[in-house]
Amino acid sequence: MPDRNPVAVVIGAGDATGGAIARRFARGGYSVCATRRNADKLQPLLEQIRADGGQAHGFGSDAREEDEVVALFRKIEDEIGPIEVFVFNIGANVPTSILEETARKYYKVWEMACFAGFLTAREAAKRMVTRGKGTILFTGATASLRGGANFAAFAGAKHALRALAQSMARELGPRGIHVAHVVIDGAIDTAFIRDNFPERYALKEKEGILQPEHIADSYWMLHSQPRDAWTHELDLRPWMEKF
Amino acid sequence: MPDRNPVAVVIGAGDATGGAIARRFARGGYSVCATRRNADKLQPLLEQIRADGGQAHGFGSDAREEDEVVALFRKIEDEIGPIEVFVFNIGANVPTSILEETARKYYKVWEMACFAGFLTAREAAKRMVTRGKGTILFTGATASLRGGANFAAFAGAKHALRALAQSMARELGPRGIHVAHVVIDGAIDTAFIRDNFPERYALKEKEGILQPEHIADSYWMLHSQPRDAWTHELDLRPWMEKF
Amino acid sequence: MPDRNPVAVVIGAGDATGGAIARRFARGGYSVCATRRNADKLQPLLEQIRADGGQAHGFGSDAREEDEVVALFRKIEDEIGPIEVFVFNIGANVPTSILEETARKYYKVWEMACFAGFLTAREAAKRMVTRGKGTILFTGATASLRGGANFAAFAGAKHALRALAQSMARELGPRGIHVAHVVIDGAIDTAFIRDNFPERYALKEKEGILQPEHIADSYWMLHSQPRDAWTHELDLRPWMEKF
Amino acid sequence: MPDRNPVAVVIGAGDATGGAIARRFARGGYSVCATRRNADKLQPLLEQIRADGGQAHGFGSDAREEDEVVALFRKIEDEIGPIEVFVFNIGANVPTSILEETARKYYKVWEMACFAGFLTAREAAKRMVTRGKGTILFTGATASLRGGANFAAFAGAKHALRALAQSMARELGPRGIHVAHVVIDGAIDTAFIRDNFPERYALKEKEGILQPEHIADSYWMLHSQPRDAWTHELDLRPWMEKF
Repeated sequence: MPDRNPVAVVIGAGDATGGAIARRFARGGYSVCATRRNADKLQPLLEQIRADGGQAHGFGSDAREEDEVVALFRKIEDEIGPIEVFVFNIGANVPTSILEETARKYYKVWEMACFAGFLTAREAAKRMVTRGKGTILFTGATASLRGGANFAAFAGAKHALRALAQSMARELGPRGIHVAHVVIDGAIDTAFIRDNFPERYALKEKEGILQPEHIADSYWMLHSQPRDAWTHELDLRPWMEKF
Repeated sequence: MPDRNPVAVVIGAGDATGGAIARRFARGGYSVCATRRNADKLQPLLEQIRADGGQAHGFGSDAREEDEVVALFRKIEDEIGPIEVFVFNIGANVPTSILEETARKYYKVWEMACFAGFLTAREAAKRMVTRGKGTILFTGATASLRGGANFAAFAGAKHALRALAQSMARELGPRGIHVAHVVIDGAIDTAFIRDNFPERYALKEKEGILQPEHIADSYWMLHSQPRDAWTHELDLRPWMEKF
Repeated sequence: MPDRNPVAVVIGAGDATGGAIARRFARGGYSVCATRRNADKLQPLLEQIRADGGQAHGFGSDAREEDEVVALFRKIEDEIGPIEVFVFNIGANVPTSILEETARKYYKVWEMACFAGFLTAREAAKRMVTRGKGTILFTGATASLRGGANFAAFAGAKHALRALAQSMARELGPRGIHVAHVVIDGAIDTAFIRDNFPERYALKEKEGILQPEHIADSYWMLHSQPRDAWTHELDLRPWMEKF
Repeated sequence: MPDRNPVAVVIGAGDATGGAIARRFARGGYSVCATRRNADKLQPLLEQIRADGGQAHGFGSDAREEDEVVALFRKIEDEIGPIEVFVFNIGANVPTSILEETARKYYKVWEMACFAGFLTAREAAKRMVTRGKGTILFTGATASLRGGANFAAFAGAKHALRALAQSMARELGPRGIHVAHVVIDGAIDTAFIRDNFPERYALKEKEGILQPEHIADSYWMLHSQPRDAWTHELDLRPWMEKF
């Protein structure tokens, strides 16, 4: 039997940001469908949401595989409920000189950070337009706006994802779908930053790195905007971050 | 005796948007200092805020006159309390061919929409840095980003105001001041639109024009962001607006 | 025996613009290596260049295949000469609703308009850095800057290519390589426009569509800039084009 | 008796860049009308142009004074000939904290770098539209695109000038006037840089600072573009400049 709650799908709920977004929408009354490649790793998140009184479902799904994606969205709509919120939050960067960049990595970065976004957002949009409402949110980065040295692969994927967000906003806004893109500019409070950039992480004491919960609040705020005053793009950065 | 509440200054509280912002911050517990050139015209706004249980003060002040501006901020800090929030919301456009644009009008548009913003934001910033906190918000427009045909004067002033917002954000962010710029892209529900663009105004029925209260909610949201996740710029537009 | 002339490689010399660029660099004294998937179709271009007294070589090569690309650049450097100029000029658009866009087409557009650019530009850059000089030019479009409705695939690929150009410029500029990106905004005088958009094509009489030769002159100009005054990006559009 | 040559007006021909632009257009067959506030200081430039066989006229004129500007353009058209090229090249920056910026300086920077551009470009445009041709060129800077810390005044003026250039391009392009904006990003080989930034100036040996003659070549190139392929904006920076 489907949940009574409307559904929020979070693609890439494996990291700190995706997890916080999932918790935020669960707290807001959404039945959260969280995905990552390895479903087992979603268990702690699902348990946490349920312990807090929320509804959550985990799906092991490779967002780069069209068949898997199509099946996933059909299953969610059939078994859980109508998707009202979609969040795409996959992407990772390993800076590399253009002279050393491999075709394999360049392709993989795009496939993960952009192609998967296209496949999943398209499936979400197809359902939303039939109901004339919904929110589609993309996680961007500084590299969405600027192609820095050694960032050809990541900036390429992120620029392309931003183009997707713009194109979808322009086509789907007039059909009632709110599409927005969040440019995160700064280090996030994650295990990765803690373990690899301890000096940066030390800025946490003075609120110098982004808290996933605060990022999640912005996603929730975007979803909550009335349709006469939608934001398409906003940036988020710590007060002390250079830009 | 000063008010107990922290102070929010709204420069240009005369129009629908400025009035809604004033009401929003009053409702949020701020003692609102609203300004426009003619203080008498602020009375209805002040009465409305007070009727709703809020604190409000009106000031007739020409934001283009340095002496008046300096005196105004001194008076507010001396008599009302420390300024925590500053909103600059002046600006108006009369499209004109570059071939017909007068020096007088080109100057006046800049003086009102940009120079007044510099004078007032500087005075606010001087106080805020001594306390290491505060929020400075600027109202932008589509013309902040694009110089359209016949928009040389207005786009010039709005581009310059956006440069001011960026420059202040980069200097003052690391000193604890949150500076943000809101790009409003679309018609607002005002008497001016109702009387002059009735077809546009008719879109109100389907939420096709911006409600001042919803704009005000975004200003409040910006002010409420924790300092590890500040937004510097966001856009606001109705769902059906082309962009 | 290698040519005496320095080498200019034009990837995607099959269309009107690529052909004009090839002729321009041949006229400027470069030995032009023109590529497209089907080498036979390059014959008219090669003959024209030779008839004009220039040097030209044609290569059938699929720029999306890493092995072919690596072999191609090795062959050119071994058999023709050192590459001084590289031009990437592949890309085509078929507008499609995001709701109808196929994974296959989305991928193909990116592969052709972006991935091929990465593979070929990387091979060119590897040679150029060893000599501390060279020019790398990318053909962009309006979609490089804006994700329009129904343009998700093309705008994504073009945004990503622009990110590549920026990233390469920032890394390779200080190593003596001039990387530039040309944003072409308007219809070009091609058989495609003539046959499919006759009304647009009729603007040719008043210089309302871009002449490939004039585009080519801008590429030549970019290559000719002294290194104290390099342009990274410029736009080209007809005088009557809206923007 | 009027000169036989078409006229190029250079507003702000006093500095190295303006002088080089004046020489370039004189060499290209234009009768150059060079202006700066103090006409006497133009003598060396005028003599140099004449010694090289060119035609040049100097005018002491304050470009911020509407009456002077209107009279100047009338005089040039009456006494020298029809203006085909217009270059606006005034602007200087003294970085200042927003907390210390004076109203007087903020105003002066805008008046010089933007308002003067409006006044003079409008007068040029009025003449050009009657003939359906002409070129209007504006000198921009990094601050045209970015409001850096301590750059509120200069960035404001430069952003506004860029808005003017865009607005004029969009209105006047379809009337045959080519309007372009050149973003100069880097130190220029001037006495000012030599005397105040000797380390920077030392980069001249490796072409690390812009040569005014090369900047001038780009202005000439812009003017020479055929009208089916006009550039509205390009950047110029030394190969080793960070951006």
